[in-house]
Amino acid sequence: MKYRKIPEETVRRLPMYLRAFSLLRTEDIQTISSRQLAERLGLNSPQIRKDLSYFGAFGTRGVGYPVESSARRIREILKLNTPQKAALVGAGRLGTALVAYPGFSLFGLEIAAVFDNNPKKVGRKIGPVKIEDARRISTLRKRTIRLAILAVPADAAQSAAKTLAGAGVKGILNLTPCHLQGNRRVKVIDVDLASQLGILPYYM
Amino acid sequence: MKYRKIPEETVRRLPMYLRAFSLLRTEDIQTISSRQLAERLGLNSPQIRKDLSYFGAFGTRGVGYPVESSARRIREILKLNTPQKAALVGAGRLGTALVAYPGFSLFGLEIAAVFDNNPKKVGRKIGPVKIEDARRISTLRKRTIRLAILAVPADAAQSAAKTLAGAGVKGILNLTPCHLQGNRRVKVIDVDLASQLGILPYYM
Repeated sequence: MKYRKIPEETVRRLPMYLRAFSLLRTEDIQTISSRQLAERLGLNSPQIRKDLSYFGAFGTRGVGYPVESSARRIREILKLNTPQKAALVGAGRLGTALVAYPGFSLFGLEIAAVFDNNPKKVGRKIGPVKIEDARRISTLRKRTIRLAILAVPADAAQSAAKTLAGAGVKGILNLTPCHLQGNRRVKVIDVDLASQLGILPYYM
Repeated sequence: MKYRKIPEETVRRLPMYLRAFSLLRTEDIQTISSRQLAERLGLNSPQIRKDLSYFGAFGTRGVGYPVESSARRIREILKLNTPQKAALVGAGRLGTALVAYPGFSLFGLEIAAVFDNNPKKVGRKIGPVKIEDARRISTLRKRTIRLAILAVPADAAQSAAKTLAGAGVKGILNLTPCHLQGNRRVKVIDVDLASQLGILPYYM
């Protein structure tokens, strides 16, 4: 099913909604109003109604959103209804921490490959995954791994991103502070933790 | 110096500009045009001009932005012109990785305290910082630590945030997937890594 173009801000909120609907299901709640959902998520309810309206008639006026089918619907929209494998590039502290991160499983995401260019690390295991030589990134295409988490030192970011694009990767979660020079076929989401912490003093 | 109210989206981009100006300084570049800056950062130049115009006459038409004073100015605006200490709550893998993260130093940010409620972890050191019992979070007020990184398990997030607010913390970088129930005196920035990875398949 094709949807009309959805603003990036809406797409960014969909995982929050999915998480909320998934949690509601475990609480045996069958329907929820946009107002209740707004309270849980700290958003306003018109925003939620607008976001979810992009996908057609999600809820019923006066009844609310059906929890189970809404969760299913968002999974479909985000293409998370089938498990997605991701590769981690850079087995430093941050990358290694992420392999064990339990939060990915809710979304059906699994870190299925880890690469590093340090020969001392290659062959070691992080949890169940063996660290491979970074030269093997090119094998991602035939392993149908289309997502990557980039957690290399800043000066290696650009070339690693290029290698990933060449290996057919379509989406990169960029944890380095570098802006990755454009490749229109690859969607990049930047998460610069230092910058995020760095804006907090402004609000103090 | 007081500035007029700046949109959150602009504030969020300021650390990027600060990083770029800092890097330019190491490259011995004295001025840069908004167009050149836009290229480096993957933004558009009207956006950059608009963002920086909030702080008065930053640049000179036809000449560009002076690198050194622009960096200094943004540091002032973000209150990063004096070093800022942060506390880490939750010495799990992700938290531990962050203590050693080199990216914070550019912004004058330092993780100066680490808390955990696991007695086996208390007293151990992460780099130069000793892990303290979470009951000691209340000491943050007299240690003048006003920033915190929250990296506890999801079910402990809300109560930890409440304790931090009670200890005088004014800004929290929330790495848990939980929405923290409101406290108007505390600014919270959410960074949910699983959600960020979870939106990438949508774009594939």
